[in-house]
Order: sequence, then C-alpha cells, then structure tokens
Amino acid sequence: MMNVPLTVGSLLERAEKFFPKKMVVSRTLSGVHRFTYKEIGERTRRLASALEKLGVEQGDKVGTFAWNHHRHLEAYFAAPGMGAVLHTINIRLSPEHISYIINNAEDKVLFIDEDLLPLVERVNEKFKSVKAYIIMTDKDELPETTLSPVYSYEELVREGDPKFEFVKDIDENAPAGLCYTSATTGNPKGVVYSHRGIVLHCYAMGLADTTALSESDICMAVVPMFHVNAWGLPFAAAWFGSTQVLPGPQFTPKLLAELIDQEKVTLTAGVPTIWLGVLNELETGNYDTSSLRAVVCGGSAAPRGMIKTFETKYGIPFLHAYGMTETAPLVTVSRLKSYQENLDIEEKLDIRSKQGLLVPGLEMKIVSATGEVEWNGQDMGELLIRGPWIADEYYRDERTKDAFRDGWLYTGDVATVDEEGVIKLVDRTKDLIKSGGEWISSVDLENALMAHEAVFEASVISVPHPQWQERPLACVVLKAPYKDKVEKQEILDFIAPQFAKWWLPDDIIFMDEIPKTSVGKFLKRALRDQLKDHLVKNI
Amino acid sequence: MMNVPLTVGSLLERAEKFFPKKMVVSRTLSGVHRFTYKEIGERTRRLASALEKLGVEQGDKVGTFAWNHHRHLEAYFAAPGMGAVLHTINIRLSPEHISYIINNAEDKVLFIDEDLLPLVERVNEKFKSVKAYIIMTDKDELPETTLSPVYSYEELVREGDPKFEFVKDIDENAPAGLCYTSATTGNPKGVVYSHRGIVLHCYAMGLADTTALSESDICMAVVPMFHVNAWGLPFAAAWFGSTQVLPGPQFTPKLLAELIDQEKVTLTAGVPTIWLGVLNELETGNYDTSSLRAVVCGGSAAPRGMIKTFETKYGIPFLHAYGMTETAPLVTVSRLKSYQENLDIEEKLDIRSKQGLLVPGLEMKIVSATGEVEWNGQDMGELLIRGPWIADEYYRDERTKDAFRDGWLYTGDVATVDEEGVIKLVDRTKDLIKSGGEWISSVDLENALMAHEAVFEASVISVPHPQWQERPLACVVLKAPYKDKVEKQEILDFIAPQFAKWWLPDDIIFMDEIPKTSVGKFLKRALRDQLKDHLVKNI
Repeated sequence: MMNVPLTVGSLLERAEKFFPKKMVVSRTLSGVHRFTYKEIGERTRRLASALEKLGVEQGDKVGTFAWNHHRHLEAYFAAPGMGAVLHTINIRLSPEHISYIINNAEDKVLFIDEDLLPLVERVNEKFKSVKAYIIMTDKDELPETTLSPVYSYEELVREGDPKFEFVKDIDENAPAGLCYTSATTGNPKGVVYSHRGIVLHCYAMGLADTTALSESDICMAVVPMFHVNAWGLPFAAAWFGSTQVLPGPQFTPKLLAELIDQEKVTLTAGVPTIWLGVLNELETGNYDTSSLRAVVCGGSAAPRGMIKTFETKYGIPFLHAYGMTETAPLVTVSRLKSYQENLDIEEKLDIRSKQGLLVPGLEMKIVSATGEVEWNGQDMGELLIRGPWIADEYYRDERTKDAFRDGWLYTGDVATVDEEGVIKLVDRTKDLIKSGGEWISSVDLENALMAHEAVFEASVISVPHPQWQERPLACVVLKAPYKDKVEKQEILDFIAPQFAKWWLPDDIIFMDEIPKTSVGKFLKRALRDQLKDHLVKNI
Repeated sequence: MMNVPLTVGSLLERAEKFFPKKMVVSRTLSGVHRFTYKEIGERTRRLASALEKLGVEQGDKVGTFAWNHHRHLEAYFAAPGMGAVLHTINIRLSPEHISYIINNAEDKVLFIDEDLLPLVERVNEKFKSVKAYIIMTDKDELPETTLSPVYSYEELVREGDPKFEFVKDIDENAPAGLCYTSATTGNPKGVVYSHRGIVLHCYAMGLADTTALSESDICMAVVPMFHVNAWGLPFAAAWFGSTQVLPGPQFTPKLLAELIDQEKVTLTAGVPTIWLGVLNELETGNYDTSSLRAVVCGGSAAPRGMIKTFETKYGIPFLHAYGMTETAPLVTVSRLKSYQENLDIEEKLDIRSKQGLLVPGLEMKIVSATGEVEWNGQDMGELLIRGPWIADEYYRDERTKDAFRDGWLYTGDVATVDEEGVIKLVDRTKDLIKSGGEWISSVDLENALMAHEAVFEASVISVPHPQWQERPLACVVLKAPYKDKVEKQEILDFIAPQFAKWWLPDDIIFMDEIPKTSVGKFLKRALRDQLKDHLVKNI
C-alpha cells in the first residue's frame, strides 16, 4: 500500500481544511480570546517559517515553558510541522532540574510565557544550547528581561509565511515531541514521542470505546500542556475538529467550573486533585455542568468515592484512565462491557473505579517473581506494557536499562488483572507496604479513607517498623467544615469493615495539605522522609 | 518509541484476551451456530498451524471461495496470522476470471464452501499453483468432488495446534490480504492489503466520527467477505470485541430482516441494492428493527429517497459511506457537523446523502483539466486519494500506471467538494454523460428517479447521439404493485422540476431487472451495449 508516513503536521492540516470555522478558546493573561482553526492554522504556518528563519533545523529541540493557551497549541504543531522536536518543559520543576533538562535536550529555542519569565531568568545562565528566547505575550512591547536574544512571538507570527508547508516526507519514526518525567530520585528522565506514536495515539483517543473524542466535543484539557502532551488532547482535538478550550495561566477550580458552564465543555481531562478541587467548587457555587459527557481522570488513581459523587450527585459521567509519560500516555480506559450494564450501581462503580481495559494497539502482562500472574483479580505483579506509542528509552539516560527490558516497559506499577481483563493498580512498586511478609496496597486504603465524608485528601505511606518491617500510616486532610471536629478513631472505624485487621493504618495524622509533585500527584517520598520515625516512637 | 509492527494477528488476540465470552453468530448450510471469541481464537490457531503443516509459507497466497460465516472469519485471521496472504475470491466472477485471478495470485491453497464446489470444479484444471483444496463443510464426510487433493476443514482444525503463535516480528508493510476488483474491460485487477493498512483501517472504523464500531455493537456484515474484506468489519469487530453476525450462504432480504430482529443487530453494512431489497421486505413483513443504530451503505451512491425512507418511515439511522477496493475501502463517511444539527430535515438529508467527509488519515484532491477544483460544491473533477491504507499498484498488472500516478490513486470517480469539505460523487468518469459539451450526472438523475414512489431501481446511461454526442436514457424497474400502471411521462414530470431541461432523459425504458455486477452495482456497460441504438432510432 502507499508509503505515506503518519505526521503531526497532517493533524492540523485536517482541521484547517475540514473544520476551518471551528474554534479554539484561549485564556491568556489578558483574558479569553477566540480563534478559528483557519486562523490557528495560518498562525502556526507563520510560526513554523519563523523557526526556520531563526535557524531551527530538522531534529532540533524547541522548548516551551508555558500554560495551556493558543500560542502553546500553535507551537505544538509548528515545531513538529517543520521537522523539529517540541520539548514541553514542566514549569514546576526546580531550577536545577530545569537547567538539567534543557541542557540534556539541547534546546535551541525556548518559548516562554511572559509571567513565567522569572522562573527562567534565575537559571538561564546555565543553559548551554539555547540560541533564542521567544516571549509569548499579548502586549505590543516585550517585557524587560535579562534573557538575550529575545523575540516577540506575535512579531514572528506577523512576519512569517502563511503558506509554509509542513514536512510530509519525514520518517514517521522521527522524533516530534519530548517530555521529561520526574524521577523519585535524581534528574528527570526524558521521553521522546515519534510522529507515528503521536498519530496512533490520536486514533486510540478517538475510538468509540476509549474517550470517543469527536467533532461534536468541546474539549478542555486541564492537564497541563507541559505534561505528556496534555494527554494528546491538543493533537487529537485538532484532527477530529473538536472545539478546544484552553484554560490558561494560574487557573482555579472556580475558573474551571465557570469555563465548563459558559463554554459548554463536553469533555475535560486532568488529575484527581484537580477534580477534588472542582467538586469542592461545585458544592459551593451554582454551575450548569449538564454539557459534560466525560470527565477524564488519570495520572493517579481516582478515588471511588469521588467518581460516585461526580456521577450520582452531579450527573457528570466520569472516565477513569491510566497512563504515564512513557506511554504517551493512554494505556487503559475504564468502561463497562455491554453485558455489565445490567449490574447494580455499586458493582458498576467497582469496575469503573479500576484502571480498565487496555486500549486497542497495546500489549500488556503482569509479572511477579514467579512469572506472569493469573487473571484472577487477586495476584499482584508489576505491569509491563508494549506498543507503538510506548517509549523504548529515556533520552540520553543510563536509567533506560532499568525500565526498558526485553522489549517491554516495566511501569513500576503493581497491578492485578481480573477475568474480564480489567487492570487494577494496587500501588507503585516503591509505595507498596510490606508488612510481616505480606503486601498492603496504599491505594486501596486511600480510596477507603477518601470515601469518608469528612476527608478531602488522604495519602497512605509505609514507615519502618522493628517487628513488621513496614507498617501503613495515613496522612489525612479534612474538608474545611470538619477541621478539628473528627477523631482518628471515627475514621479508622469507618474503613475497618473493608480490610483485614493487619491492613489498617497504625495511626492517622491530620495535615493541612499533602505535599504534591509538580504534576499534582502525592509526594510520598517527602511524607516518608518526614514521618519515618513516627510509629516507632508512638508504639 | 518501540518498534512494534501493526499486525492482523494482534486483532484477534485482543478478542481472545479481553472478550473471550463475546459471540460470533454464524449461519451455514446447516443452520445458525454460535461461537465465543475464545473458541474462534483457538480454532483459528489450530487452522493456522494446519496451513503451516500443508506447506504454506510466509508470503504464500491462500484463496477463499466462501460466504460470510465463522470459518471464513477464521481464515481471515489464520492466513495473515501465520504470515500468509488471504486472497478472498469473488464467487460471482466468470469461470475465466476465477482461473485468471487464482493464477495471477498464485494461490497455493484454496478454501471452498461445500455448496460452491461446482463453481470451482468447472475451472480447476486451469489452476497452475493450487496444491490443496480445503472444503468448508458442516458434515463429517467430505462431499464427492473432482478436486484433488482435498482436506476437511474441521479435520484440519481438530488436528491443529491450539497454542499456535501468530507472527509478531513481521514487517507491517508485508501483504496480509488480496482482493480483485472487476474492471470494465479485461481481467480483474488485484489489490494487496498490508498488515499496516488493515490495522490503520480498523482504527479508522472505530472512530466516534466514522462508524464508531464498539464492543457494544452487534455487527452484521452483509457486504460479502469476498468484497474488500467485508469493508474491514470482520477485522475491526474482533479487535473491538463486537458481536458478529455472519449471514451465510444465499441470504434473502427476509433472512436479513429476521437476523436484525432476532439477533438485535446494531450495525449492518452493504450496498444500496441490498437495502432496497430489505426496505421492500420491511414493507411487507413485521420486524423489530429498533436495535439498529446504523445501516452503513457504500459501494454505490445511496439514493436520497432510500435514506429518507429508512430514517423517517422506520426510524433506522442510515450512514452513507464511500470507498473502493483500492482503498480498503473506507474513504468518506457522511455525518453532520455539530453546527449543522439545527438545519431542517431536508437540508440535513441533502448533506447526508452526499458521500461525506474524508476519514482521518487520508488526503484528497479533486482535479479537473485546469487543476484542483474549487471547494464550491459545483466544480467537477476526478477524485484523487492518498494515504496509508490506499493501494499503490494493481498486483502484477500493467494497468497500475493508469490509476496510480504521482503518489495518488486516481479513483475514476467524478466528484465535487463543497465549502464544508463534503464530497459528492457525480459519476464514474466513464458513466458521465457528455451532452452538447456539457456534463450530465447519471447519479443525480438516478437519485431523482428512485425518489418516485413507483420506482424500485433506476439506472441512467449515455447513448450516442448524432447531434449532442451523448444523451441520457433512463432504465427503470417499477415496484411490483405499479407494474404496467405508470406512464413514462408521469415519471419524467416528477423529476422535471429538479433539473435543467436538457438534463432530462430522452426516454425511459421499463425493465424487469437491471443487470448488476458481481458485487451488486449496476452494470452500465451491459446496458449501454444493449441500448446503444435506442435513441437514434426513436428520434
């Protein structure tokens, strides 16, 4: 058949040709702006030509340091569209990690949001490869900055070539994107996305049995565009002609609820902590969320109680998914099979709060010390994944050999799989609690704790124990109205019926906030450091 | 990213692992049988191992001469699953064409349905490459036959290895399928389908904005499995875990209506003549068709009147699509864009009776003598298609150079495209009527004629004319109750308001049947030969 490569440029081209009137709604520092795909397409071509004029060549890395907005979307297509590699930088990384990844990637050009300039200015002296800084600002004048040389994004777009042709004869295995995932210890690890991988991932997102992204969707990626390509949504939404809503800088739960209401968002996506915040906001405000057909949630396991509240209290369909930076990210989506539709609501929630079924195109296995585990929903092992949108290395990183072995990605996630093929994450291999030779799932305990009406967030960690080796300890944040009004024992009693006695946390510590990683996941390593002597002292 | 090839074997493997309980409902000569995907998977592996034992090697062609049933489905996966190429043979071809394509393909093994044996027995002496005949029969004993050597399908399956591993390290561009398309003149032309092309086509079929094939579907491919892989449905339905209903040998409109009713079919697919027959049956019988969410129709343009009857009289959603053997076949699907949902019903029908929007992954242009036509819904030109599931040659055939040029497939279809990107087929280049230097679309006239309540089928052809070069002539089949009760002039008066006067057919000829090709399209060449002197005599 025809040897036509799958390319990122072709995704936007489809939006330009078939959905020129459809809209991108973009919130920036100066407010909400609206662009058609025709305009976005033309601006992207102009930008791509400007990159070429700045000396960016095929295979060069182009960094972005930005929120979710239309300019970031244009960079998403302009860089791979002219054969370069889009390197999205997590703005929440430490200064050391920022300079490390920019040097590791050898970024040639950096796009920076105006309000994020200070974060770059404090480290840019360490950058070894950056030849140009492009400031994304709504203003006519460039802001004062110590960076040099600096260019105005809008000026580059104005002077660019609106007829610039995206590369088409590129090897589909050529890199198109690059994103670093934070490691528990040491520097972040880079994951390269190929044109082929990104396009196949878009197909996977559009399937009726996954997220079913469609032209009729109004899609709001809350997950940052610096986090695994915002789960591929900006690419797929353009390809399918979906309206996109980009929530911009420093958004709050209130802003997200307002955007859902005003823009009639149909599908939105983000990590559980985002949705906990939005739920909180829905409980205080008065919003019309009836347009929503899917709240896609991944990044960490979504608590069963949260899913239930979204669906039963607000009638908002929830879609639990699983993936990681190394997997581009979609690996599983949790939907019922047709013959499960008759189960009662709690049984259905049990299934849907698991991570779900592998999406078409990937392979999986779950491996314990004794080989592949049985599909019985009980036996635990590490989840291994294989497929055309799964990374095969960390970029220029010796840790590649730890995670990528025998053609499989070792995810570091401990999981079970049941007779229906539904995957349930039990824990991260490093967060699993080994008590008296048995395993305790911190995730299961957290889910149970978060089902209590007073609990806002809960994180369960292992702490060293002289007799049992490790024991579980629960860190709990109470909802504001319940602060100082709930006893530990009440919460322990609440979860006790669900677990063997030796699973129950030895103590509960109430906190004002649980420390989180730069992408909103619980930072258990910090909790473990802080609390490593807690139980020993208290017993 | 990982270098994991897209393979046909992986499609069935997903059904085995994740949907082992889901069913394949198969009608054979002995009645309706039911198999789970677990059973189909094991039988397929046994069959694949049997092919290997028979001496079939990677790249060898394996022919099938069969109806739509579970054994044909198993062969669909067994041949590519062990690295061979599945060559589906159109059972309605002439004896000369059957021996030509079997020799052109160099089929090594032939699967044959018991009731189709006579069709092979009359030509098998001419076969040069066939080393084994496998008879698909429900009986314990093999039927009497002059073919040799013959094997029993079920015996091969019984003796095969249920643990046979499908090839995984194959080049995804390797051939997996082969299908011949009938040419207007000369021998049929072979089209090779690669593993990559078939898998990408499955993705295209599962998108929310195309046919949205899903696990929840009960999918009945009426389109023969010897016709462009039954439009890819057997592959995609297995991959997504859809239930499959295979209607078997010599089916009638009555049988199809019964299967829809009894099996609660949700999606079915076939050519317009099939649906005309089913409509006729629905008008006489009493069937529950409420399970249907989509009647997919392609192969020829679906008449607007038929779409309207399905939807307004029976509440059955109709999905007009377009493709050809060379395109695997899905090229366009006709769905409304979200902002067209507010149009009135007739405007919506106008859009949906066109061929629709290009599916994600393909490129198109429409070219006239003066270059690419404007997207104005008026300018006509030949439709050109490009993409990873489009053929790049006819197999061992000099006619390759006519259809495949400059990296594009020249479809031979004349089309317009409007501002929304919606393609409308005007005609086959060879069926377009050139009258007095202007073009008349036979398809538009046919649609108008078939909207008349008395008309069952209509085909408009060009006949030579001394003054105007060509003139349109309409061949019309009346519905049974209207036979001999309708005048030509009444029908001409009915369509007159829709066309310029010079577009109107010079005459209408009533027929009992319109000759059709082996896949159910009007055989206009035969009509033209038969009627080439008609007008000249009558004027």
